[in-house]
Amino acid sequence: MNREQALLIVKEQLTEQRYVHTIGVMGTAIELAKRYDEDTEKAELAAIFHDYAKFRPKEEMKQIIIDQKMDKTLLAFHSELWHAPVGAYLVEKEAGIKDQAVLNAIKYHTSGKPGMSKLEKIIYLADYIEPGRTFPGVDEVRELAMISLDDAFIKSVKNTISFLMSRNQSVFPATFEMYNSFVMKTEVE
Amino acid sequence: MNREQALLIVKEQLTEQRYVHTIGVMGTAIELAKRYDEDTEKAELAAIFHDYAKFRPKEEMKQIIIDQKMDKTLLAFHSELWHAPVGAYLVEKEAGIKDQAVLNAIKYHTSGKPGMSKLEKIIYLADYIEPGRTFPGVDEVRELAMISLDDAFIKSVKNTISFLMSRNQSVFPATFEMYNSFVMKTEVE
Repeated sequence: MNREQALLIVKEQLTEQRYVHTIGVMGTAIELAKRYDEDTEKAELAAIFHDYAKFRPKEEMKQIIIDQKMDKTLLAFHSELWHAPVGAYLVEKEAGIKDQAVLNAIKYHTSGKPGMSKLEKIIYLADYIEPGRTFPGVDEVRELAMISLDDAFIKSVKNTISFLMSRNQSVFPATFEMYNSFVMKTEVE
Repeated sequence: MNREQALLIVKEQLTEQRYVHTIGVMGTAIELAKRYDEDTEKAELAAIFHDYAKFRPKEEMKQIIIDQKMDKTLLAFHSELWHAPVGAYLVEKEAGIKDQAVLNAIKYHTSGKPGMSKLEKIIYLADYIEPGRTFPGVDEVRELAMISLDDAFIKSVKNTISFLMSRNQSVFPATFEMYNSFVMKTEVE
């Protein structure tokens, strides 16, 4: 599937604003893939489809999580998390994308998980720093992303946890586990 | 056991600085217990003994965690966490304290856990805000502690997680679970 075909498919699924965001994520993901020696076509495809399920009704997403035997913990946490794993499922089913690396980058782009692949980190990070994002601290992460994928990635993870805590919102356990697994590689007792 | 007897026992176990900290925690814990209608004697006893095992050799603490079949996850995380559950064990064994509520307040004073009792929250919070503490943000928590135990408690939990993240240090899973269990009681989807 080429870029134009992919974009046509997702445009149908998104609001205008979310489509513009998607274009931003696509550009940033390709840039990051070039800089950090990742497959740019996979990065492009994952970025284009990362929010594919964003506007599906909650009830449909819930049913898919149950029917497809996805991690049921999701249902106890904020529904904002659901579109990522549900999106990976629907992108395979409805758009025929079979590349597991691409599907996983979509699946984990919101919660993250311990042991993220380079492509998964790129999509997670691109979603955080694409040009349309304006929240406090994003410029610092953009600068880090020019120097080190891992440093920028973990900073975006920490910012996300801090943001959720500042709003007294729950944090999905895999996000915390991702943070711990990442810092424990280098931690000194 | 009265206050003087208890203080004599812990003084043997602590440095001068840590003993002064303990006196601070004791005063704060009694104040909080009075304000929030908790047993002041239990608060006093838990506060006095909360750091009982602080200066035990790492190897001794590790062996106790293994021998007493405590949560082995502890061993994969920072040894700074070990003195709390090991302390609860030694305080029972060596100082003869049998009150399970007091022992649990000692056990969970560093990591916390989901579903903390009022006494456990008081000791956790007193350890955070006692007069000798000077870190950024502590005054805000002291002020909250005059108004709401829960608000002050969750703020101290969030500050602790933020502090650990700012240093790229791991966060014990029970601490994250405590945060989530606390905010999920009031979270709106």
